[in-house]
Amino acid sequence: MEYTARERDADFLMNKVFKIQENWSQIDAYSELSSDLVKAVLAEGGRLAAEVMAPLNEVGDAHGCQLEDGEVTTPPGFKEAFAELTQGGWLGLSGNPAFGGQGMPKSLAGLIEEMFWAANSSLFLYGSLTVGACLSIDAHGSAEQKRIYLDKLYSGQWTGAMALTESHAGTDLGMMRTKAEPRADGSYSITGTKIFITSGEHDMAENIVHLTLARITDGPRGTKGISLFIVPKFVPDDVGALGPRNGWSSGSLEHKMGIKGSATSVINYDGAQGFLLGEEHQGLAAMFTMMNYERLSVGLQGLGAGDLAYQHSARYAQDRVQGRAATGAQNPDAEADTLLVHPDVRRMLLTQRAYTEGCRAFAFFAGMQLDEAKHKGDERADRFGQLLTPVVKAFLTDKGLEGAVMAQQVLGGHGYVKEWGVEQIVRDARIAQIYEGTNGIQALDLTGRKVVRDGGKTLAELLQVLAGFDIDPDFKEPVDQAFARLLRVTQSLVARSNEDANLAGAVATDFLDLMGMTLCAWAWGVMTQCAGTDDFGEAKKQTARFFFARLLPRAVGLEESILADSDVLMDMPEALFTA
Amino acid sequence: MEYTARERDADFLMNKVFKIQENWSQIDAYSELSSDLVKAVLAEGGRLAAEVMAPLNEVGDAHGCQLEDGEVTTPPGFKEAFAELTQGGWLGLSGNPAFGGQGMPKSLAGLIEEMFWAANSSLFLYGSLTVGACLSIDAHGSAEQKRIYLDKLYSGQWTGAMALTESHAGTDLGMMRTKAEPRADGSYSITGTKIFITSGEHDMAENIVHLTLARITDGPRGTKGISLFIVPKFVPDDVGALGPRNGWSSGSLEHKMGIKGSATSVINYDGAQGFLLGEEHQGLAAMFTMMNYERLSVGLQGLGAGDLAYQHSARYAQDRVQGRAATGAQNPDAEADTLLVHPDVRRMLLTQRAYTEGCRAFAFFAGMQLDEAKHKGDERADRFGQLLTPVVKAFLTDKGLEGAVMAQQVLGGHGYVKEWGVEQIVRDARIAQIYEGTNGIQALDLTGRKVVRDGGKTLAELLQVLAGFDIDPDFKEPVDQAFARLLRVTQSLVARSNEDANLAGAVATDFLDLMGMTLCAWAWGVMTQCAGTDDFGEAKKQTARFFFARLLPRAVGLEESILADSDVLMDMPEALFTA
Repeated sequence: MEYTARERDADFLMNKVFKIQENWSQIDAYSELSSDLVKAVLAEGGRLAAEVMAPLNEVGDAHGCQLEDGEVTTPPGFKEAFAELTQGGWLGLSGNPAFGGQGMPKSLAGLIEEMFWAANSSLFLYGSLTVGACLSIDAHGSAEQKRIYLDKLYSGQWTGAMALTESHAGTDLGMMRTKAEPRADGSYSITGTKIFITSGEHDMAENIVHLTLARITDGPRGTKGISLFIVPKFVPDDVGALGPRNGWSSGSLEHKMGIKGSATSVINYDGAQGFLLGEEHQGLAAMFTMMNYERLSVGLQGLGAGDLAYQHSARYAQDRVQGRAATGAQNPDAEADTLLVHPDVRRMLLTQRAYTEGCRAFAFFAGMQLDEAKHKGDERADRFGQLLTPVVKAFLTDKGLEGAVMAQQVLGGHGYVKEWGVEQIVRDARIAQIYEGTNGIQALDLTGRKVVRDGGKTLAELLQVLAGFDIDPDFKEPVDQAFARLLRVTQSLVARSNEDANLAGAVATDFLDLMGMTLCAWAWGVMTQCAGTDDFGEAKKQTARFFFARLLPRAVGLEESILADSDVLMDMPEALFTA
Repeated sequence: MEYTARERDADFLMNKVFKIQENWSQIDAYSELSSDLVKAVLAEGGRLAAEVMAPLNEVGDAHGCQLEDGEVTTPPGFKEAFAELTQGGWLGLSGNPAFGGQGMPKSLAGLIEEMFWAANSSLFLYGSLTVGACLSIDAHGSAEQKRIYLDKLYSGQWTGAMALTESHAGTDLGMMRTKAEPRADGSYSITGTKIFITSGEHDMAENIVHLTLARITDGPRGTKGISLFIVPKFVPDDVGALGPRNGWSSGSLEHKMGIKGSATSVINYDGAQGFLLGEEHQGLAAMFTMMNYERLSVGLQGLGAGDLAYQHSARYAQDRVQGRAATGAQNPDAEADTLLVHPDVRRMLLTQRAYTEGCRAFAFFAGMQLDEAKHKGDERADRFGQLLTPVVKAFLTDKGLEGAVMAQQVLGGHGYVKEWGVEQIVRDARIAQIYEGTNGIQALDLTGRKVVRDGGKTLAELLQVLAGFDIDPDFKEPVDQAFARLLRVTQSLVARSNEDANLAGAVATDFLDLMGMTLCAWAWGVMTQCAGTDDFGEAKKQTARFFFARLLPRAVGLEESILADSDVLMDMPEALFTA
């Protein structure tokens, strides 16, 4: 599927909008990152996405993955493309240099991830889970575990997977039943069944390293009794050479709506050998190191899907002639005008674009917070990163699906048939709203844990920092209004939550939506201020005008909706939902 | 896929909300319709939907249709189920009694159609296109054509299809190239290729009757040169006995995102014999008789999909235990509380339900307008029906998809895999926003043709009629405000359109959305006023509270968005959409 990486936009955000070189010059680990090097990284990442990964996107959907005799075969070409991805060191891009990672900033890595997700989300999933596993092992592993696993994973010689979900325990991990029995040698024997395990079994790497949540025998009930284990497919010896096949297998592949090139397994652990990662009973915390990375990254999956869909529909609209402009024929010599003369087609394209570009900007800003927290030990940046993560995950994936559905609509009937590719984007993008914590869970994390529990303090601080950016005078007023609205809503939410325990949950989705809209408004105000007067700048300006006139008004309705208390949801008797 | 027909809701709308018996008693054709008979019709329709059609819904998706040697095979069981549907006379339910139809009201038929769409949209498509073909032949056919075709079609012995789209001509029918050359015997020789032909070829009936748009040799250019032809698979003699195979064939089946049990063909006409239906060069008008019926019906497809998805997700939420209520365990003896303790899950379910029930009510009202226009010759009812048709088509299908996507979200990961069925509803529902005129075209039809061109007069009249209904005092104020808002927006749209030719198109989708929201608000105000204090009434009351507090506020944002002129869309230079 044709895809063009957004190198120009990446450059614009880094150098014009966020003046990243100034920022990096204050961080030792990044001070050597010249803008030439960064440019080269983006160009090569873009090439890999467009030329190696994108051509396999439809192949992956058409072939899917096959399970036979316990072995999973990935779609034709995936193995070779993954080899190219890993041999270029892309999985270790922002990894720990002590173990073969390249130590690049998260913000930069995010721009590359977006490209990989857009080009072929099924293929990149094999890499993304690996990156997450590395983060968790790097943060919680013993020196020996880091030595054995990290460079094999960064290099893609081995891949990672996270095994959380059981058929009766998805969001509620405290209910999980998978058991870990201590063995005499200090390792554990893992027994149980996990479902929905992305990259749990496949043929792209010589070893697959599961990070598996399980309950140590006689551990406390609920989430407090859960520990995290490294459960490799082949148990390595202490120099990392592959040992015997471990006691787990893929019982079946899930039949999914999309991302069919990604092998999603039911995994049966039958006394498999596992190695405790981090502390006993602290498994959730260790897993969340992985999960938080994945959440940001999944947001970028939504962004990539939205942009891919935009590119397809914009090209289609430019090529397809149909009907005449309401103001009279624009191209009287042709049989008809292009779709672009029709205002409603422009509305769909500009909606997709306004969200894609606005989201890309604030997601980059979120990545910067992670970098500052990590390297400067900046406590405030850490809180900003945590506050922004659920918004990036949920808002970007919501807008990704919405954009893909709009792209389908631009293509009309051609959007519904396989040969044009857009319907696949819809099916593929849909998962991003569900996995790594549903978007409802993201919203509750935002409102409950990150806003109400903190009295709205971090959000207020963030808005103050954002207000310090140079904002286009043309859009200063609506941006200020949007900030004031979000603050007002936050204060009301915090105050009312004292008396209404269900309030945070009741308004969570609308609140997250409002915050995403506000961040987009800010991003557009900042971007147009930095954009020049060339075509690139003109496109930014026109897209911003559209955003403020036609999309931001949604925020007014969201504010009114969030004013309602939870009783309008909670008073309905349970039995009546199916009556 | 399990489905329960909404007989209670149908009864409530007919007898409590719209007091339909009073209405029917004034129409000769309906004066014999006792409420017992109606009840029996609904019960039998519901049984057929739930017991015969619904069990084949997943089968249809899994098997799809196959084309071999020009013959299309439908999924296992479809033929037998369709036979049961047709033998019961369901296709002729509101058909002309002079030719074997049952002459029932459109409003009643709509309630039944919703059931059939919900139970198995792929299967019902074979019927729906047949009903549409009957309408067109009944309205425009010669006495002989009616005699030969109608009762065979009403009885489902033959089925219908409409052949409009060509690969380069979808919305813009004026560009079509299919030719009709006059033959010496008064018939025509049809040559060309049509795509996306629903039920164009299949194995469920002995004959398939295409209504095909083509251009008579030397006819005027553009839409004015298009005529409509009856092009049967087997040309019947003058008593309707099957003659020779006609010169068209299915060149291939489209590979679609969903509705896989529905055979969608590319049809090649190779000098096929066609019979002019209606006047020369008046083909579009004749086709629109069919199309307007199909548009209402497709709206009901969206409604059915939304309700089916709701039923699945509500059951799942009631059964699935996960986590604890924010206010403390509600079911302390169980391992966890049900999903229904979580406010955001309730938000999703109530959103689905509020739109489904609100839409069902105003779609029924739209059906009543068609009945009054037809039987009382009521000119105003005719205009109301025309005004409401695009809203029913687009708003109900938009909300159908939105509801199905929400249902998926309630199921989490289980919503993304095939075995739970909900992902199929999403894929199936998606087409309804595209075919029979995309929802963008519906919106333009509404704003341009039905509102601006008429100076907003019909819409104002409609709101006056709606305001005459008895509205629940609890919700009177927001309903009044919603009416006032829609009027205000309409007046502004009409006034500004004089100077801004693109305005109607620019705001069309938001305007249609605002009108749908307003009609839902009215429906809820009226329904709660008629609902009792039993469980059924209590559910209505709680759903209405939620609608007014949490959904209707969107209208505020829509109004603000519609205030923008078209320049925020049209100023973007064409080339920059892909720059």
